[in-house]
Amino acid sequence: MIVSKEAREFTVGILGLSTGKPLIVVNEQDASEMGLSLHSKAYVRSGEKATYASVTTTRTMVPRGRVLASLELAEKLGLKEGSPVAVKPAGLPASYASLLKRMRGERLTYSEMYSIIRDIVDGAYDEAEIAAFLLSQQFYVLDEDELSSLIKAMVETGVKVSFDEPVFDEHSIGGVPGNSKVALIAVPIVASFGLLIPKTSSRAITSPAGTADTMEVLARVDFTAEEIREMAKKTRGLLVWGGKLNLAPADDIFVNVERKLSIDPWHQMVASILSKKLAMSVESLVIDIPVGKKAKIEEHGHADQLAGLFIRQAAKLGMRIKVAVTFGGQPIGMSVGPALEAREALEALINRKGSRSLVDKAILIAGLTMELSGKVPPGQGENYARELFTSGKAYEKFKEILAAQGGNPNIKPEEVPVGRYTYTFKSPLEGAVTYIDNAAVTMVARAAGAPFDKGAGVLFHAKVGYRVNKGDPLFTIFSNSEGRLEEAISLASKYPMITVEGMLLKTLP
Amino acid sequence: MIVSKEAREFTVGILGLSTGKPLIVVNEQDASEMGLSLHSKAYVRSGEKATYASVTTTRTMVPRGRVLASLELAEKLGLKEGSPVAVKPAGLPASYASLLKRMRGERLTYSEMYSIIRDIVDGAYDEAEIAAFLLSQQFYVLDEDELSSLIKAMVETGVKVSFDEPVFDEHSIGGVPGNSKVALIAVPIVASFGLLIPKTSSRAITSPAGTADTMEVLARVDFTAEEIREMAKKTRGLLVWGGKLNLAPADDIFVNVERKLSIDPWHQMVASILSKKLAMSVESLVIDIPVGKKAKIEEHGHADQLAGLFIRQAAKLGMRIKVAVTFGGQPIGMSVGPALEAREALEALINRKGSRSLVDKAILIAGLTMELSGKVPPGQGENYARELFTSGKAYEKFKEILAAQGGNPNIKPEEVPVGRYTYTFKSPLEGAVTYIDNAAVTMVARAAGAPFDKGAGVLFHAKVGYRVNKGDPLFTIFSNSEGRLEEAISLASKYPMITVEGMLLKTLP
Repeated sequence: MIVSKEAREFTVGILGLSTGKPLIVVNEQDASEMGLSLHSKAYVRSGEKATYASVTTTRTMVPRGRVLASLELAEKLGLKEGSPVAVKPAGLPASYASLLKRMRGERLTYSEMYSIIRDIVDGAYDEAEIAAFLLSQQFYVLDEDELSSLIKAMVETGVKVSFDEPVFDEHSIGGVPGNSKVALIAVPIVASFGLLIPKTSSRAITSPAGTADTMEVLARVDFTAEEIREMAKKTRGLLVWGGKLNLAPADDIFVNVERKLSIDPWHQMVASILSKKLAMSVESLVIDIPVGKKAKIEEHGHADQLAGLFIRQAAKLGMRIKVAVTFGGQPIGMSVGPALEAREALEALINRKGSRSLVDKAILIAGLTMELSGKVPPGQGENYARELFTSGKAYEKFKEILAAQGGNPNIKPEEVPVGRYTYTFKSPLEGAVTYIDNAAVTMVARAAGAPFDKGAGVLFHAKVGYRVNKGDPLFTIFSNSEGRLEEAISLASKYPMITVEGMLLKTLP
Repeated sequence: MIVSKEAREFTVGILGLSTGKPLIVVNEQDASEMGLSLHSKAYVRSGEKATYASVTTTRTMVPRGRVLASLELAEKLGLKEGSPVAVKPAGLPASYASLLKRMRGERLTYSEMYSIIRDIVDGAYDEAEIAAFLLSQQFYVLDEDELSSLIKAMVETGVKVSFDEPVFDEHSIGGVPGNSKVALIAVPIVASFGLLIPKTSSRAITSPAGTADTMEVLARVDFTAEEIREMAKKTRGLLVWGGKLNLAPADDIFVNVERKLSIDPWHQMVASILSKKLAMSVESLVIDIPVGKKAKIEEHGHADQLAGLFIRQAAKLGMRIKVAVTFGGQPIGMSVGPALEAREALEALINRKGSRSLVDKAILIAGLTMELSGKVPPGQGENYARELFTSGKAYEKFKEILAAQGGNPNIKPEEVPVGRYTYTFKSPLEGAVTYIDNAAVTMVARAAGAPFDKGAGVLFHAKVGYRVNKGDPLFTIFSNSEGRLEEAISLASKYPMITVEGMLLKTLP
């Protein structure tokens, strides 16, 4: 058997599979002669384009001399049935020595960091190496120079969307249920003030709803960079999904592995947020850090440390920033889950009032964003923002945004479809709500089907501080699946979401 | 969109792909309804059998209600075209909490360790989690109880091959080029003494030849457990490949990830070797630890520590063990690469003599193995072994083994085909060989094509201590590919393998 490192020519067939990354199917004999095996990677070239691909072998699906390309590979190289490609075994990625260096806890320069991120984005590494890169940061925390190198490299290895004027944005680190709807109020306020705020957001990964999931209940959120630039010129504000724009694509790769390992290093969080914002040319940014029991950040000291990290990195990267540390000890507003939250935001905009934890927070965030523009006096942002909200200008702007994004601008809250199966938990006693457990709420809403089932979630009838009588409704679970509703009910019975405290704790028997 | 956690029934089609692990191809719409996505895993059941499978989605390759199974999935569940299967999203693996615990550096009990290994072998984890498990051992070294838990769990999650009498074996930790042929001499010596030594070995991963690669030049090495038991009854000794026997299958999974991360923790090495041996019911084992510059172990102190680890673990596991620390400062024998090494071993057996580093080492290892049986007086193993070697009994036994394994027992060394393209490096001066660089030899032999090209490798004409004249041949590179030979020559010119020192260092011009 002869092994050659030189590329061989093959004719391509298209395999109609989404494999998440480029995959090439090679005849077993060809593979064996070329030294390609199941756990190896090939470097595939077609004309000027080239990429790494994972190798899969077959005895039956392709004859010698032909290869099959997965959809991702075909798309990346622009391959069609019958295209010629050159395939060779991929050697060690150029950044491999830098990766090993980081694993030993040594510091990386910008060019070393860039080469790792470049190779990760190009598909040169498998999950194992990516996990090692992330875990090296658990054991040897990135220093601040490395962190800004990481952020810059993440931006440079993706698409940059540019605008003709300064771009503003606001972003919450999340971790509190019900928070996804805040942007549906804050963005139209800022846009109605005249600032450019083409907000990109993500879908929920571990929460019941991301801003993109919630906005999608009312309008489209998947647009190309070109469409976003065009729409933003008209509406000034947008609420779109950043997922398909290829902004800092390393981040999506990291998130997938972090989730598997249940790790969420602060530095990666800062890198994730700032890289996506820089890729959207954001110059002025408000960061919201909710703090409270069972939120992502539970202690004020930690919030301050994280805020410091954001502030120092933003300074290094030439971004204006304000960090708002907000109360995250219970859910935001009265609803959790995409459709329920979309309804609540819409109601607040139409009625020009709503739950204080929602409306006040949105106004606060919008006001801080406006202050960054220098066009409102310091400390006056909140007043300006409240005026835009209560005057109905924010709602008018939201309708423009809905129309631009292909939604129905005149939709009424009650027209938003929510889960058709419901179950209401009632208070077992007279008393006051003293605690709502964020983690239990998230678990129950997800068990009910959120965010995939957009109608699933939890609607609160009482929050902390509310007085309730015995038998008063506390919360209602929504779902479009009876099975899932049952599962959510059983979890909600086992892990109480709401604590009501009164004089009488129990009656017996 | 409704997501249900309940299993759905599908009809199976077979996808003729080897994907290295079970893979299921699901129609995009079915996947989306079930909450299955590209990065998720499905739990697939067919009758009594069930396994995890990675999910791949398609719009075109299967209609709704049907799924495609990769060859590994079909084999694992015994699926055929048209078989019914039940598919549901896989939840978190049962051992997930234990994995996170280990990542935090906490100690695991046997049942926690077992559950992790069980889930790894069952395919519940992706590379990211496996990398995290291995890296956790880099940062928080396994304690000795955890290590024996790991070894036991690795054995329990694979196949055990049992024999009707005590099993002996010898194993080198490797890392020195040319070592793969030692077993071809040691095993027949031990078997000709009457002991049962059905040696399983591995193929080269990072070295130019594994014992299985080298033996395969002369005979078949891939047998079933049943065939091995039958053959061993007759020949007493065997030299087979352990790869397809499913002995401690976790090890193969670990090795693949370790290679990607360039890590090779001692504890995993001990676990790898002892688990495979326990799975083969080995009761008495000799471990060879070569020590020397650019070997796997470079310092004597480290060899002693590693030996201690082997000895304490063997005691915990009820195995008799001897550890031989041997000289590994230059290649073993005069050849490196499967065919060249097979030739050299055959020549030594036929001629009853050969390179001292080969013959003496094989005799030493065989002698220690025999001492473990209690059938030779302590300290006399080497003498007994030498007698079996020089009398030709070992060669007769090797011929029996070759015949049993489907090889030609009467093959002559010169009939073993070696690389058809060769290039010989000559000494630039008169002097003595003072150093041979293991790492350079390995690199050059692999560049020439070893172990995939069985005829590729390096043949030495001189080793450390040899006197050479200017122009005397030092070594010859063999390859079956002209391109690869050139690459090997260029590497050998850049990274000198052999150092010759004399009075005259250089002439000018």
